Amino acid sequence: MASRFNKLFTSIKNTGFGEQASQQGDRLINRDGSFNVRKRGLGFFDQLSYYHAFVSMSWLQFLGMVTGAFFLINLFYASLYWMVGYDQLVGLEGTTNFQKFIEVFYFSTQTFTTVGYGKVSPVGTWAGLISAIESLNGLLGFALVTGLVYGRFSRPVEKIIFSEKALIAPYKGGRGLMFRIVNARRNQLTEVEVQVIASMVDSKRNNGMRKFYPLELEINRINMFAMSWTIVHPVDKESPFFDMTEKDLNESDLEVMILIKAFDDTSSRLIHVRSSYKYNEIVWGAKFVNMFDGVNDGKATIDVEKLGEYEKATLPTGIPETN
Amino acid sequence: MASRFNKLFTSIKNTGFGEQASQQGDRLINRDGSFNVRKRGLGFFDQLSYYHAFVSMSWLQFLGMVTGAFFLINLFYASLYWMVGYDQLVGLEGTTNFQKFIEVFYFSTQTFTTVGYGKVSPVGTWAGLISAIESLNGLLGFALVTGLVYGRFSRPVEKIIFSEKALIAPYKGGRGLMFRIVNARRNQLTEVEVQVIASMVDSKRNNGMRKFYPLELEINRINMFAMSWTIVHPVDKESPFFDMTEKDLNESDLEVMILIKAFDDTSSRLIHVRSSYKYNEIVWGAKFVNMFDGVNDGKATIDVEKLGEYEKATLPTGIPETN
Amino acid sequence: MASRFNKLFTSIKNTGFGEQASQQGDRLINRDGSFNVRKRGLGFFDQLSYYHAFVSMSWLQFLGMVTGAFFLINLFYASLYWMVGYDQLVGLEGTTNFQKFIEVFYFSTQTFTTVGYGKVSPVGTWAGLISAIESLNGLLGFALVTGLVYGRFSRPVEKIIFSEKALIAPYKGGRGLMFRIVNARRNQLTEVEVQVIASMVDSKRNNGMRKFYPLELEINRINMFAMSWTIVHPVDKESPFFDMTEKDLNESDLEVMILIKAFDDTSSRLIHVRSSYKYNEIVWGAKFVNMFDGVNDGKATIDVEKLGEYEKATLPTGIPETN
Amino acid sequence: MASRFNKLFTSIKNTGFGEQASQQGDRLINRDGSFNVRKRGLGFFDQLSYYHAFVSMSWLQFLGMVTGAFFLINLFYASLYWMVGYDQLVGLEGTTNFQKFIEVFYFSTQTFTTVGYGKVSPVGTWAGLISAIESLNGLLGFALVTGLVYGRFSRPVEKIIFSEKALIAPYKGGRGLMFRIVNARRNQLTEVEVQVIASMVDSKRNNGMRKFYPLELEINRINMFAMSWTIVHPVDKESPFFDMTEKDLNESDLEVMILIKAFDDTSSRLIHVRSSYKYNEIVWGAKFVNMFDGVNDGKATIDVEKLGEYEKATLPTGIPETN
Repeated sequence: MASRFNKLFTSIKNTGFGEQASQQGDRLINRDGSFNVRKRGLGFFDQLSYYHAFVSMSWLQFLGMVTGAFFLINLFYASLYWMVGYDQLVGLEGTTNFQKFIEVFYFSTQTFTTVGYGKVSPVGTWAGLISAIESLNGLLGFALVTGLVYGRFSRPVEKIIFSEKALIAPYKGGRGLMFRIVNARRNQLTEVEVQVIASMVDSKRNNGMRKFYPLELEINRINMFAMSWTIVHPVDKESPFFDMTEKDLNESDLEVMILIKAFDDTSSRLIHVRSSYKYNEIVWGAKFVNMFDGVNDGKATIDVEKLGEYEKATLPTGIPETN
Repeated sequence: MASRFNKLFTSIKNTGFGEQASQQGDRLINRDGSFNVRKRGLGFFDQLSYYHAFVSMSWLQFLGMVTGAFFLINLFYASLYWMVGYDQLVGLEGTTNFQKFIEVFYFSTQTFTTVGYGKVSPVGTWAGLISAIESLNGLLGFALVTGLVYGRFSRPVEKIIFSEKALIAPYKGGRGLMFRIVNARRNQLTEVEVQVIASMVDSKRNNGMRKFYPLELEINRINMFAMSWTIVHPVDKESPFFDMTEKDLNESDLEVMILIKAFDDTSSRLIHVRSSYKYNEIVWGAKFVNMFDGVNDGKATIDVEKLGEYEKATLPTGIPETN
Repeated sequence: MASRFNKLFTSIKNTGFGEQASQQGDRLINRDGSFNVRKRGLGFFDQLSYYHAFVSMSWLQFLGMVTGAFFLINLFYASLYWMVGYDQLVGLEGTTNFQKFIEVFYFSTQTFTTVGYGKVSPVGTWAGLISAIESLNGLLGFALVTGLVYGRFSRPVEKIIFSEKALIAPYKGGRGLMFRIVNARRNQLTEVEVQVIASMVDSKRNNGMRKFYPLELEINRINMFAMSWTIVHPVDKESPFFDMTEKDLNESDLEVMILIKAFDDTSSRLIHVRSSYKYNEIVWGAKFVNMFDGVNDGKATIDVEKLGEYEKATLPTGIPETN
Repeated sequence: MASRFNKLFTSIKNTGFGEQASQQGDRLINRDGSFNVRKRGLGFFDQLSYYHAFVSMSWLQFLGMVTGAFFLINLFYASLYWMVGYDQLVGLEGTTNFQKFIEVFYFSTQTFTTVGYGKVSPVGTWAGLISAIESLNGLLGFALVTGLVYGRFSRPVEKIIFSEKALIAPYKGGRGLMFRIVNARRNQLTEVEVQVIASMVDSKRNNGMRKFYPLELEINRINMFAMSWTIVHPVDKESPFFDMTEKDLNESDLEVMILIKAFDDTSSRLIHVRSSYKYNEIVWGAKFVNMFDGVNDGKATIDVEKLGEYEKATLPTGIPETN
């Protein structure tokens, strides 16, 4: 594993991020896992993924969008009926133009949703045509909504939460870079794999050039992700942080990039999650508070609210024992 | 395989279950494969997966839920029509308020399902608005139901059944830990992989601390899961059970955790199945009864009802021959 | 690869097929890839997969089933309306009972499909209730049909055809067991992997016991499956067929089982295909006819109808050169 | 990797493309990734994948097809109503046959979409039957459209663009074959793997026979495909291009085939992309222009329009340094 990584990440080019891309203060991966990158020259529509947007917005937003579109579309069709003349519709009872428009608007909704009470109905050729197209439009619209609804249902629902800070913590007589994750959903994740890559300007060794280092982990794969998981990079002789002080770390413009892969039982799909910590999101000399909350009703319990909690700790100066 | 396992499971931390989580009498994995864990501090909605619930309940429950929701929603809309006044609807024939409410309730169902006979229809502005919203609501509701129905269809339908007990059985001149599985569906599973992990307090070796041991299997992968499969862990010198007696086993608070991975031909998806046996679900000195039931009409036949059947057997004291 | 195979298949148990299952004349895998196995003791419903049946039948059968169900359901509801009395429906024009039943049947279809012209409509409480339930039923029915239609669309559409016979053919100065496959669809298959396993009673070596042998292949993986592929097992010193004559082969009750795995570009899914050849489907001393049909309009062309065509060929007595 | 490749591709047979398929001037893979192959003898329907066609056409085409089908189907049903006689429909107001046909056409659309105003409605047995079937037809049609719409949504939306030309460019003191790719969508691709295979007639070594060579790459896998990726095959001693001149290359009928595999975060699916460069799409002595466009608003920016831009460059005559 390590050797493959070393091959992949010794030079900046290999990550797909260019050298110039990594200026002081920028991050390559946002905390929500998206890439902090812009592509110029692509058309607006090329870049947008409407489907993805509709599928990942909240249900409230989604219902709002659908309802809004519903009213706008009916306003449009009501205007069309008005343009061809209200005499092409029978059954209107209103006497003023406004009253009639309201009635025609409702007739439009009855056509779009295919309710079609028939109290009002088209008699003229144009109104007949418009209402035929509108009902087709309505059915296509609801085919679309049905597709989006299922899309919302079927995508993996994982929500892996990361501790707010990463820590340089005491570890086996030495120190380790640690962060903690928990699965905030009830779906069951298995075969979880983690890769961690450090991107930093290491003034001591590389003449101020930015380099990428894969970080060796204590464990990079667990079979079942039932509780929380503290991911640990032991700061041993192989670590790029081996001889660094707190000051070095802050000046290195360090970004710790995290790639997680897991199998989601509920959706039977592989999921990928990314995040990153910048140097100012890493606390020097601290350790995480225990999340375990005893056994209640025969169930091992963890307190998710303590995920990010840590306390000051003195760092040993030795090298972590590796077994 | 073994070496990777050993790396992963030598210490308790590595499974994602904390040390304290494993007190006497608790199990980590329930027999249905869910984790026996509670996460505090997550909101109620964060943890729930409605989609998963609706997709995994029985068809009877599902139809009951849908029908119940249908009547409640129509009751709600019928009340709205009542609130804006029955004079906003034409075509009602009832004379008492109760008769009218029944009629309005049916009008509501005709709107929600978009049948819209038109015998009763809205004339006032408020009734028009409510019925427009109700028909939109109806279509969204059925988009939802359609999505759920497809979700129910498309998820893998595997049902791997485990023998009720695991056995310490005679095996090749020595003994083996055995359990038996069968695929209770007609879908065809291929590339089936099994991992077995023992979680136990081994008083002889680890000062009463709980440890996790991956168990070596006679075979851990089969290409086709057509009949039944007896999974065997040979109790040889490498086995954590090597020098244990029946009494040791019962005092070890043993839990044998099983992780199965397979490819489901019907849904073209990978599936993961879990289960576990606690020490009191393991029978010392027994062997499984043959499930094979001869060849009938040219088809090899097994009797699934015999899956869990076993009979007493004397255990040899030797070490299983491994080839 | 070979070593893993050897481990998996040296004994009968390892395939998941029991020893007794392999009596003379039975095949383990049918030519269509299903297992030739019966499981007793499972309930009728446990074993059936309705979804799979509806998704894999022909479109003609599917439309027939849907139309048939449509008419039966409406017959049922028409009978319900008849039972509560035709006076609960207004708008009927028929004078005889039969005429009225026809009208009510059509009213039922208009309710079930939610057309709801309103020419006939319910007035009584019972007819109102029945029509409310029927329209809900209709919508649920079409949610079901929509789910099935999408299920039919989205499953992989691969259709790998096998040559009718396998051949013992001349191969590199010796002989080889060969069969030929082609992808009969326009979808593009990549990363195709093949495993071949022989199940036979080898009277010379194993006292008449049935054994399973993985067969080494000349190539067991191709990156692109664009044309046809002749899969070759060289009969060299490692082959279980090395010293067998045509007569030995016929007496061995040989079954050559084939497992194919590929990635289907169109559905973005992994597919698995199985088939098998029994000893009487293997031709001794023959070779396949070339399927290549020249370059037409700049496209390399193969003639799929020649897939199974072969001609007599003299078998060399040497050992195939392996490089 | 290399060794496996060498095994797979040393002879022409191994790619699934026959020897004869590779005549001068043909390409095996089209630039859009499809195979340049024709299969004779398959039925028209066997080869077509309607679903694939409907799912991959543009939205405009799709809506056009649906609308066209809608009008044709209604024309068909309107003709049926005409054939059974307009006296089986009540509510028609037209006086000429043409006027009536228009009305009946609209009645048909109201039935097909299940709007069913009821202004016109069937009274006769035949019109009742036709309208019952038409409404069923309409619902099945929209089940179909809903399935197709979701199919359009859920397929991976990747659009990897290749530089128009591949280059023989200066590389680490020697030369390299290079091409450049970018992901033109906003979806995030991870775990991108590339395989490159050269198909050529190497007159110096193989007596003019076509051979397939896997090409070693500087890097064949990146974890994140956030920006652009220049894929490089170093022309070192192992390269089939090592002692070739520009003239040799043009006479070799070279085709460079590219297979890309990646994980698409948005659809949670694996995707496969193919393309190829023929000898006349490879520029000798040129290098790519930098696409990096500075950091704007804290985002590293690349200019996608420069993907294919290159400039003349002198090729060193040395061998690339490999580390």
